[in-house]
Amino acid sequence: MATTANQVFIAVIGAGGVGKCFLSQLSALAKRRPTPKLNLCYISSSKKAVFNSDYSVGIENVLQELASSSKSPMALPQIADYLAAAPSKAILVDNTSSQDIADAYPLFLSRGISIVTPNKKAFSGSYKLWQDIFTAASISGAKLYHESSCGAGLPIISTIKDLVDTGDEVTKIEGVFSGTMSFLFNSFAPVEGAGGQWSAEVKKAKDLGYTEPDPRDDLNGLDVARKLTILARYSGLPVESPTSFPVQSLIPKELETVSSGDEFLEKLPQFDSQMEEIKLAAEKQGKVVRFVGSIDVASKAVKVGLETFDKSHPIAALKGSDNIISFYTKRYGSNPLIIQGAGAGGDVTAMGVTADLIKVISQIA
Amino acid sequence: MATTANQVFIAVIGAGGVGKCFLSQLSALAKRRPTPKLNLCYISSSKKAVFNSDYSVGIENVLQELASSSKSPMALPQIADYLAAAPSKAILVDNTSSQDIADAYPLFLSRGISIVTPNKKAFSGSYKLWQDIFTAASISGAKLYHESSCGAGLPIISTIKDLVDTGDEVTKIEGVFSGTMSFLFNSFAPVEGAGGQWSAEVKKAKDLGYTEPDPRDDLNGLDVARKLTILARYSGLPVESPTSFPVQSLIPKELETVSSGDEFLEKLPQFDSQMEEIKLAAEKQGKVVRFVGSIDVASKAVKVGLETFDKSHPIAALKGSDNIISFYTKRYGSNPLIIQGAGAGGDVTAMGVTADLIKVISQIA
Repeated sequence: MATTANQVFIAVIGAGGVGKCFLSQLSALAKRRPTPKLNLCYISSSKKAVFNSDYSVGIENVLQELASSSKSPMALPQIADYLAAAPSKAILVDNTSSQDIADAYPLFLSRGISIVTPNKKAFSGSYKLWQDIFTAASISGAKLYHESSCGAGLPIISTIKDLVDTGDEVTKIEGVFSGTMSFLFNSFAPVEGAGGQWSAEVKKAKDLGYTEPDPRDDLNGLDVARKLTILARYSGLPVESPTSFPVQSLIPKELETVSSGDEFLEKLPQFDSQMEEIKLAAEKQGKVVRFVGSIDVASKAVKVGLETFDKSHPIAALKGSDNIISFYTKRYGSNPLIIQGAGAGGDVTAMGVTADLIKVISQIA
Repeated sequence: MATTANQVFIAVIGAGGVGKCFLSQLSALAKRRPTPKLNLCYISSSKKAVFNSDYSVGIENVLQELASSSKSPMALPQIADYLAAAPSKAILVDNTSSQDIADAYPLFLSRGISIVTPNKKAFSGSYKLWQDIFTAASISGAKLYHESSCGAGLPIISTIKDLVDTGDEVTKIEGVFSGTMSFLFNSFAPVEGAGGQWSAEVKKAKDLGYTEPDPRDDLNGLDVARKLTILARYSGLPVESPTSFPVQSLIPKELETVSSGDEFLEKLPQFDSQMEEIKLAAEKQGKVVRFVGSIDVASKAVKVGLETFDKSHPIAALKGSDNIISFYTKRYGSNPLIIQGAGAGGDVTAMGVTADLIKVISQIA
């Protein structure tokens, strides 16, 4: 195989919902843009992998090949070795939500391997990991993009980076950061009409694939807390972890320890009156309740939980599983820069990953 | 002077409102990021210039130096020669709205000089110029960014490029694209209260610096038409020019030919009843009137003009001089991706230019 600068090598970890959409976008991209040549050289699911000593795994039909492969995934240090030895620059696309892979980012970056990922864990884990990641990238010159770690394909991370990189100061960020929570509250407490029962809406969201397999992984607020941790850090606050500020969980205490998501859903109706009370209290004031997050930079206050909004407020008027995020900055003054749209879904999440990949390629190839 | 890859040379044309804000951001950027070294090597206003054979014009105090300079600006081909001969990669920052400079972009790009600019003229002039520009960049590999040509620092151009580059299809774009028009209609026909007289609001906007020196340059709708031309082209419509689709002008026919902006403002009150009628007709339907633009890709329809909106519509509820732009795409489905915020102002416009500069530097240095 010829060694030229006009090609890049791409390893993909993860072939779930986002991973499949990404592969489809990668295939189309490779056809639209023949230069530089995009060589898929590794792909793995949690149990299987496809790779070879030629670094050439065809993008077409790779999912079938993966399903029938007899190879196990390489260990992470082995993947780093494999990519560092590629005939040209290499990019790791981490389409998982694995903490183990996130923990290995400093290793990959220090070996000159660029990373694009929707994985929140790397940027919302310990502050030390955050520092190690950016230090490793800065020393080696490897690139690192993670747009889809917050708001899927919405331009949230790129916007806060542009604001800060050009010398603006973020003063406050607030909004609805979870597609799942948005969907739940837009149906449970709509601006017009009565809305459904809380437990029924949670079940519906699960059936539609809008929640994690165990809905408690959405209702505990940790997903939103992770996104706020990332944005707070870019705003200049060295937030230690997503559990180092107040996060309101919507899991009734009594159901925190039940053994399965199914058991949780079965017992949740017993607690509907709690959420109903909250909804009615808001309605009495002519308001609706929403699950939001906010960062106040001056007071270093980050918080996640329920708040009430006038029915005319943009947060109240959201639809479907849309996110809305308002950036208040020194330059933008009292009228924030606002970004709104689908914050979840395979295709729009993969779009953020593919756009990041294009940015990395434009810098390294 | 040492010739190293770790520096870039920057020429700035234009030292008006945006240019001054940009220089201040450039100065801060150079201090925050010592690598690669940013060498300002040329700056010009319409009448004067500062440059030297060393390619080293200090960024600090450069405006004073420019004011007292005895040098005239170089001719454009001469600037291209100068930059092409720089000791390392060069970037032209065009902070003007000059058609002449826009017409020279293919020359600069073909000589490997990257360009960042808020100048709309290059991308909304003839379709041939658009093609020449992107062909020249593609052949030479020079980079070209123009975020602030639409919506100032709002991530409009980057978003449409990411959508299209990742294989999404834009189906419709609509919104308020002019900070001036937004300000005028938010005061003339507010959602709550009576609003002012049309001519008085135009005068107020001019006094606040929100309009061009001759307000007719905003009221003719051409500025909005230019932005739509750019977005339509990125959406795949080969729009010939900003005058090749319907654009409603708010200049009364009788005042199109008066000799000055001042005379226009003096005579405008005679025509207030026309705008008042439009406002009242909307009010009778419980609506407000706004100046908007839209692109429908399937029907290839681009248009600019007055439309009425329910008072609860996000376009009706805009504040100040905010823009709001909704992207409808195949992937995003019925809920658009929406970006809202200040679409005019020196600092936020310069922010888009500076962010673009950072992107170019990351690719060429």
